[in-house]
Amino acid sequence: MSVGQKLYEGKAKILYATEDPEVLLTYFKDDATAFNAQKRGSIQGKGEMNCAIATHLFKLMIANGVPTHFIEQTSGNEMRVKAVKIIPLEVVVRNIAAGSLCQQTGLKLGTTLNPPLVEFYLKDDALGDPLLTPDRLRVLNLASAAQIEQLIQMANQINSVLQTFFQQCGITLVDFKLEFGTDSRGEIILADEISPDTCRLWDQSETDPDRRVLDKDRFRRDLGNVEGAYRQVMERVLGQTV
Amino acid sequence: MSVGQKLYEGKAKILYATEDPEVLLTYFKDDATAFNAQKRGSIQGKGEMNCAIATHLFKLMIANGVPTHFIEQTSGNEMRVKAVKIIPLEVVVRNIAAGSLCQQTGLKLGTTLNPPLVEFYLKDDALGDPLLTPDRLRVLNLASAAQIEQLIQMANQINSVLQTFFQQCGITLVDFKLEFGTDSRGEIILADEISPDTCRLWDQSETDPDRRVLDKDRFRRDLGNVEGAYRQVMERVLGQTV
Repeated sequence: MSVGQKLYEGKAKILYATEDPEVLLTYFKDDATAFNAQKRGSIQGKGEMNCAIATHLFKLMIANGVPTHFIEQTSGNEMRVKAVKIIPLEVVVRNIAAGSLCQQTGLKLGTTLNPPLVEFYLKDDALGDPLLTPDRLRVLNLASAAQIEQLIQMANQINSVLQTFFQQCGITLVDFKLEFGTDSRGEIILADEISPDTCRLWDQSETDPDRRVLDKDRFRRDLGNVEGAYRQVMERVLGQTV
Repeated sequence: MSVGQKLYEGKAKILYATEDPEVLLTYFKDDATAFNAQKRGSIQGKGEMNCAIATHLFKLMIANGVPTHFIEQTSGNEMRVKAVKIIPLEVVVRNIAAGSLCQQTGLKLGTTLNPPLVEFYLKDDALGDPLLTPDRLRVLNLASAAQIEQLIQMANQINSVLQTFFQQCGITLVDFKLEFGTDSRGEIILADEISPDTCRLWDQSETDPDRRVLDKDRFRRDLGNVEGAYRQVMERVLGQTV
């Protein structure tokens, strides 16, 4: 397959056109950023590991009836995906309090959230991806009320499937960020990726609050052994059948 | 009336005990702060003006069936109020987009919000008074679901009364912040104050976006003539019968 024009370069991925206008090629980079790109670095092998993890998890989603943009993995760090119009929202599902939720509200790290929180953030780097209340979401008019309902329903469904899956991997799914898009028929499908870049994952065999971290928090918080953590996740994820 | 022990000194007011444990004395200061007290100053005569405005508006509320902590004005910048347990939430009602809503979401200043937004912020200076989604409000467990419903209903009612009143003053009520408390019987009543410190008020006879400002934004944004704006509000408010 010939690689076409570069359409978009994000912090962790590059999107290329293909010969088919309804298909794009996603290239997973080793680049890592945090804190709205104020911290930049590289995680060796991350591109290939995230591509493999995301491929496995997209297949898991499809097997569970969740429509996604994934078509096929075409090389170590490339996958073909359906072209979508990205909905400019980050949908965050939280099973356990961590990260910005704790920093902003003072809620204690590790507090179980039952039912899980489904939160919306405006995907806008210049504004720092602000948290949106349901009212602000409505006023900004970025998605219809029916679409918002569908996003919440899909986020909860994805969470159920992922929680069960990661449990089998001996990993606690703390929280994760999703992005969605609309396909050529206007249907909402899961886009972007699911990987240790976009999830908080805690190793169930560790109790130490730093040692258990198997996700990008190792990079954000300079915990060391970032590559090792991503590799742990990849091995455990790929070890499970979808 | 003898003034008792100082119970609490806030940014704009001091609360003193009285001989009656169910009654407090509020002293309105000339001190002004903004941006979570990073900017500090003084507005000459503000204490007396805000005390007079708040007295008038509390009487307006009571006349319209809104329970408040107000008992009576006892001097130029003092009023007797019922002792309440403050609910640690700032309830913000927005009729027109301004301030942090615009800064955070990119929404254009002056956008009409219909229906008005009723937003909750955690009253916590150390955390910077963060915006709370309904879910975060629930998780923090600072008020029951029934109390939250009542706060929203009271905020909307107060907004209706204030909008009509300020319209008669030739002033547009852009947004305002309320605080509530529970009295000795556990009933929710309006506390704190309603004044140009806590409202955004635009002079309807001015179209210039800076000249029309009749509230603390003159101080926040160094627009000058802060005292004059507060005096304008006071004269127009006191000129209307409740």
